[in-house]
Amino acid sequence: MTIAEPLELRDVTVCAPNAPHSSISAERAAEVAATLKALADPARIRLLSIIFASEEGAVCVCDLTQPLGLGQPTVSHHLKILVAAGFLSREKRGTWAYFSPVPGALERVTSDLASVGGPANA
Amino acid sequence: MTIAEPLELRDVTVCAPNAPHSSISAERAAEVAATLKALADPARIRLLSIIFASEEGAVCVCDLTQPLGLGQPTVSHHLKILVAAGFLSREKRGTWAYFSPVPGALERVTSDLASVGGPANA
Repeated sequence: MTIAEPLELRDVTVCAPNAPHSSISAERAAEVAATLKALADPARIRLLSIIFASEEGAVCVCDLTQPLGLGQPTVSHHLKILVAAGFLSREKRGTWAYFSPVPGALERVTSDLASVGGPANA
Repeated sequence: MTIAEPLELRDVTVCAPNAPHSSISAERAAEVAATLKALADPARIRLLSIIFASEEGAVCVCDLTQPLGLGQPTVSHHLKILVAAGFLSREKRGTWAYFSPVPGALERVTSDLASVGGPANA
């Protein structure tokens, strides 16, 4: 049975003499997209910028509601996503949770983007 | 009338002797988040990787459906988002639309991420 063959060949001939290919696998693309999705929110960007800029190295969740102008449940929701995606680590101190930057986390995203851009951007 | 004062002062004393601050403005955070959101999809990551890796410099939309295993309306939808976010440029050649990388677009995201990370990551 070779009935379908000519159709496929014609498609390729029409506009893909050298069919383009992705420089990253579908699985890797899904991972990169998930990491970027964790970052792709204004409140999470601001949370990261506050925590990465902190001189103390760790910021109490109680200090994050006021600069963002958001309630604690909302802030905690965003922090949970950033911890799950590997950008922040969480430590309990008494009543409060403290959040610290994970070293190298933003650099990993930069490296992911370079791999999307291909050898010229690596 | 100074009734509310003591409460605010107490809040600050409890856990923000030096209130943390964001290294980027709310407006800038919204812009960065929007750019990342345009990237944060597995199909769009693969489209970018194919188009950035192309030796021809421009890829026909007709060549993008097969490697992604998606229909042309879906591929066109994703391409539109990538053009709007400044990652790709679009050119009509006869029947087909061709898409090219916008030089420096991925580097701008890297630079945005560095600004989120603060001076230590800049």
